[in-house]
Amino acid sequence: MALCTLAFHGKISKGVSLDLQKKHLCFGTNLHLQKLNQTRKRSFGIFATLSETGEYHSQRPPTPLLDTINYPIHMKNLSTKELKQLAEELRSDVIFNVSKTGGHLGSSLGVVELTVALHYVFNAPQDKILWDVGHQSYPHKILTGRRDKMHTMRQTNGLAGFTKRAESDYDCFGTGHSSTTISAGLGMAVGRDLKGGNNDVIAIIGDGAMTAGQAYEAMNNAGYLDSDMIVILNDNKQVSLPTATLDGPAAPVGALSSALSRLQSNRPLRELREVAKGVTKQIGGPMHEIAAKVDEYARGMISGSGSSLFEELGLYYIGPVDGHNIDDLVAIMKEVKSTKSTGPVLIHVITEKGRGYPYAEKAADKYHGVAKFDPATGQQFKATAKTQSFTTYFADALIAEAEIDKGIVAIHAAMGGGTGMNLFQRRFPNRCFDVGIAEQHAVTFAAGLACEGLKPFCAIYSSFLQRAYDQVVHDVDLQKLPVRFAMDRAGLVGADGPTHSGSFDVTYMACLPNMVVMAPSDEAELFHMVATAAAIDDRPSCFRYPRGNGIGVELPTGNKGIPLEVGKGRVLIEGERVALLGYGAAVQSCLAAAMLLETRGLRLTVADARFCKPLDHALIRSLTKSHDVLITVEEGSIGGFGSHVVQFMALDGLLDGNIKWRPIVLPDRYIDHGSPADQLAEAGLTPSHIAATVFNILGQTREALEIMS
Amino acid sequence: MALCTLAFHGKISKGVSLDLQKKHLCFGTNLHLQKLNQTRKRSFGIFATLSETGEYHSQRPPTPLLDTINYPIHMKNLSTKELKQLAEELRSDVIFNVSKTGGHLGSSLGVVELTVALHYVFNAPQDKILWDVGHQSYPHKILTGRRDKMHTMRQTNGLAGFTKRAESDYDCFGTGHSSTTISAGLGMAVGRDLKGGNNDVIAIIGDGAMTAGQAYEAMNNAGYLDSDMIVILNDNKQVSLPTATLDGPAAPVGALSSALSRLQSNRPLRELREVAKGVTKQIGGPMHEIAAKVDEYARGMISGSGSSLFEELGLYYIGPVDGHNIDDLVAIMKEVKSTKSTGPVLIHVITEKGRGYPYAEKAADKYHGVAKFDPATGQQFKATAKTQSFTTYFADALIAEAEIDKGIVAIHAAMGGGTGMNLFQRRFPNRCFDVGIAEQHAVTFAAGLACEGLKPFCAIYSSFLQRAYDQVVHDVDLQKLPVRFAMDRAGLVGADGPTHSGSFDVTYMACLPNMVVMAPSDEAELFHMVATAAAIDDRPSCFRYPRGNGIGVELPTGNKGIPLEVGKGRVLIEGERVALLGYGAAVQSCLAAAMLLETRGLRLTVADARFCKPLDHALIRSLTKSHDVLITVEEGSIGGFGSHVVQFMALDGLLDGNIKWRPIVLPDRYIDHGSPADQLAEAGLTPSHIAATVFNILGQTREALEIMS
Repeated sequence: MALCTLAFHGKISKGVSLDLQKKHLCFGTNLHLQKLNQTRKRSFGIFATLSETGEYHSQRPPTPLLDTINYPIHMKNLSTKELKQLAEELRSDVIFNVSKTGGHLGSSLGVVELTVALHYVFNAPQDKILWDVGHQSYPHKILTGRRDKMHTMRQTNGLAGFTKRAESDYDCFGTGHSSTTISAGLGMAVGRDLKGGNNDVIAIIGDGAMTAGQAYEAMNNAGYLDSDMIVILNDNKQVSLPTATLDGPAAPVGALSSALSRLQSNRPLRELREVAKGVTKQIGGPMHEIAAKVDEYARGMISGSGSSLFEELGLYYIGPVDGHNIDDLVAIMKEVKSTKSTGPVLIHVITEKGRGYPYAEKAADKYHGVAKFDPATGQQFKATAKTQSFTTYFADALIAEAEIDKGIVAIHAAMGGGTGMNLFQRRFPNRCFDVGIAEQHAVTFAAGLACEGLKPFCAIYSSFLQRAYDQVVHDVDLQKLPVRFAMDRAGLVGADGPTHSGSFDVTYMACLPNMVVMAPSDEAELFHMVATAAAIDDRPSCFRYPRGNGIGVELPTGNKGIPLEVGKGRVLIEGERVALLGYGAAVQSCLAAAMLLETRGLRLTVADARFCKPLDHALIRSLTKSHDVLITVEEGSIGGFGSHVVQFMALDGLLDGNIKWRPIVLPDRYIDHGSPADQLAEAGLTPSHIAATVFNILGQTREALEIMS
Repeated sequence: MALCTLAFHGKISKGVSLDLQKKHLCFGTNLHLQKLNQTRKRSFGIFATLSETGEYHSQRPPTPLLDTINYPIHMKNLSTKELKQLAEELRSDVIFNVSKTGGHLGSSLGVVELTVALHYVFNAPQDKILWDVGHQSYPHKILTGRRDKMHTMRQTNGLAGFTKRAESDYDCFGTGHSSTTISAGLGMAVGRDLKGGNNDVIAIIGDGAMTAGQAYEAMNNAGYLDSDMIVILNDNKQVSLPTATLDGPAAPVGALSSALSRLQSNRPLRELREVAKGVTKQIGGPMHEIAAKVDEYARGMISGSGSSLFEELGLYYIGPVDGHNIDDLVAIMKEVKSTKSTGPVLIHVITEKGRGYPYAEKAADKYHGVAKFDPATGQQFKATAKTQSFTTYFADALIAEAEIDKGIVAIHAAMGGGTGMNLFQRRFPNRCFDVGIAEQHAVTFAAGLACEGLKPFCAIYSSFLQRAYDQVVHDVDLQKLPVRFAMDRAGLVGADGPTHSGSFDVTYMACLPNMVVMAPSDEAELFHMVATAAAIDDRPSCFRYPRGNGIGVELPTGNKGIPLEVGKGRVLIEGERVALLGYGAAVQSCLAAAMLLETRGLRLTVADARFCKPLDHALIRSLTKSHDVLITVEEGSIGGFGSHVVQFMALDGLLDGNIKWRPIVLPDRYIDHGSPADQLAEAGLTPSHIAATVFNILGQTREALEIMS
């Protein structure tokens, strides 16, 4: 199985493995097992991984054992020694693959041994393995029949960057948003029980994802229902995601992280207690070493005096286990698998994000998400851009507002880098609140701050704000509290795909009675809308802006925007017959469409609505009365801007005349991951599509076809 | 301060108080303090409460002390003895008031002593007191200037049944949905700190509300931020709400409830430990008895060996405290108030729902929500109806489906009574899952069940499903999993008001690409739609139905609905010129409007869309082509059914002709609580409003005015 479509930029070096092995021993965890592990590792001879001592190469590493593994069934007869070799090869394969495609690296490297152990002990797809968030699933994908497609990762028509049911039977649950897998796994476990099945269900969830309320709801219910399932807490001290490119890591937030740190031992529950007691007796002879290890954990279970949060919730706790020690992982998992009727078990595994790739280990962000890079140097090939991201402009704008208004505070949900709030945090450390992966709390917490007269800005991705919708409705909008929602990643988001697509925010926000809903058409407008939101202090407001960089317009002096008149749009080009009324980033596509059409003899009007709510009634009346056709254009679902415009037109009698209205919105299907250009084309939202729509409605079908070709 | 607008049905009996006092002693808690409390209670002489021995009367009870208390400031000089009397009078006043209006009784009775202690020790509105859910706030309302309006509770223009910021400065945060107040309180505490204030913030939250993920997110963040705030866990063993009228109580669900039961003592944290140690020394002489009590709790704190869930999350735990013992409550609260820089403190208070009113105490549902009743007998005056509620019809329909399809399972979020799933539970105890107040988990859990080939029906109120919106999008719709959403309480809901109004579900569900979205126009249709949802097994589906009773149409034989053709509506009345295309319950208003108009010489077409998604394109084309006016009518917000219809019309070219389209939707403002009829009128959705719209669009403005008068 070779990645034959990849170009190799050098020849394969086969002589590096032994060098590396020695050096590898320096990367231990601080667990009590470290010493023993090192001793044992010394006895293995065949490592195919690459070194951190300048010997990482840009070439595909040799992976003789991994080359024989297409599916987990091919691993079942491997020795523990071979499993370790497999893990090393798998790690090097992940590094190599991601270096060619970019993607989520650090989290995948952290679970290499865990993935190998899981697929060795359990029998997927009969056994259900659920990867929470799913960005750590690259090793899983390689071992489950997708190695030959790894070079297509996150690209148009390629593998998804998360688990995806449609992609493989081994992806039993699709992920992308965090903290869902205990719920889904419990559903699968209960379903199994109702059907009389006997497969295992394993949910692997990070300590960051554990801060979300849904994980707690699910554990509470799992403890109550007492179905057999296994939760693996992948504890890599990453409660706050070092996402995006802006800044380094945040220390883990939330009290849970310190609770996890305190966890060393605990009290036993139910049947596993007995298993643990008898485990040394049961496993004799050649298994001696493993048995000793299980016993070591088991003694922790039995003699511990503290009761953990997990036990309070009714989960049987095992741990902490060294997540890079395959012996231990396999032994523990085998025990848990062979012990039936345990109820829910939580195995607390300690892993290191970026493990085994020194550049990732040393990096502040552990190479959470990377561009393509050179494995030999760790250097990422980031495209240089003349402009900054909208994320950064938002942060700059908010900092400028906060300089002159002490009431402004920022809230985000474990996305300091992703939302730019790391920059705000650096400038105003006491006015920035990272609440963990807890969007619900973030929003109501902001409502509480607003009650006290502060001016909270809640920076949450459009698709993640879905998780706090009730709080937006019930705690903010209904009470007319001036919380400002900065909705990043609005519209299509490229490589992250449909889980992260900000498709619905205009629809779900604009239906709320008190909400001011706006969207900037360029980065200068974003500055002005941040200023506008700061100024709106008698009701909630929100603004959406896209993933990606600004278009290069001039920014306001000192980054200080000027508040816009609420509910006022603007005409950008005066034309005739057809008016394009764009909302947000789609305005740029309208302008580009107008350029295309002007070369073909049509001069359109292009207007920037700025506000979906309140609508600019005068602008809509004016456009309606002076044109034959009004086309609303937005990168959002049905029910949003266009729907608001046409409802006003109908109620105002404007629709009864000769005007033709056409909505251009996101299509009524999910757009898969891919390049932004491919996604926009798939969505029918390119300038060409808009221009073709204009020609079509004017009856010029030939021109419409031409402009699309 | 007398409720002079109330009619008294008998003379006031003053001789009951001493009798009652003795009997009252039988209602203790099982706490270790019970004996001491009883002893002390014997020494007090002035009780104004009413008896459970047949001596409860229908008359307003004497409340000499309460009559002197308009605001908390008037309580500050009361002795502990007087506080107890005040509590008794307050309890009797709550019972009397609710007997005249109906409302939430059980939870309010449970917090009478807690309310008195809070307003005695803390200084609202400077100190912020947040009542989670808010249905237990009746005693709070009586003590904070609203006693004279208690007879208007939940009525049009009357007091809200929950806390409401617009109603009083003492309601610092509006509630209705559960589990929000720790988040909001933490925001207020952080806001106070940023502003340099020194007020206290107290969030009172039930054990049921503690099962929601948001409470956990908030505690985790509170433990991390370490701001001073007080959380009072009002533990009345009501994890599952015995809402509505259908059935008795469910045992508390979720592992948390057993964790709470285990809580007896715990390890100390931070500064309060020292306070607790020294408390006996600090309080001398006359305060001896109180000091002993504080010491008793404090010793629990110090000698306890277990670490609770709350401590894991970084809250300082105190308890359990007898929530009906004012001495203890006052002593503990005073200590906590006077100890600064403690970080978040959780006081675990044990209360009894329905406390002090024997009919409530004995009732299965603890009189959670009651109709008007006779205090002397506890007998509720429930209107007899010829038909059952839509809730019951839904349960009947689902049971009928489940009888013939073993794959059908039901999930609800602590609303067995409210959703009718108690009935399903009774018939299929192993196929019904009450997950606690955990809508997020409920939905993803259902997704997991669907992955295993089961046919989950998730029964969640329209407004509560907002809390699981991301799970609906990300875990169900994106994966096209056949989870069925039964959205009860769709549209306006009467007395519960805007927090519970199901206004947005059509908008937020119909924008999702894979969702089938439907709404029955009567109870027979509901049966058919349950059958339709059961039959749709390749994608998610949802159906919304209103609060209230059926209209009396014939039900299908054996309760077994017949699956409808997906995406097919039906014409109910063939008419001309104007077509009313209704969705859901609004179809009945369309029919009534047509009747009104027929008497005035206009024969309209009335159609029942049945489906918002997929739309019945043929029906819409036909209506559009054969009428001058198409009016879409729905009890939902903008962006829903009407928006979908007009978008199709535009894209199909139907809107370019002479047709006039008018949308009738919920207005763009929240409708306050009140009678259903008042709400419908306020919303402009009565048959008269619809008829007037028809006249107006036909230019018959005089007739429009007449029909509204």
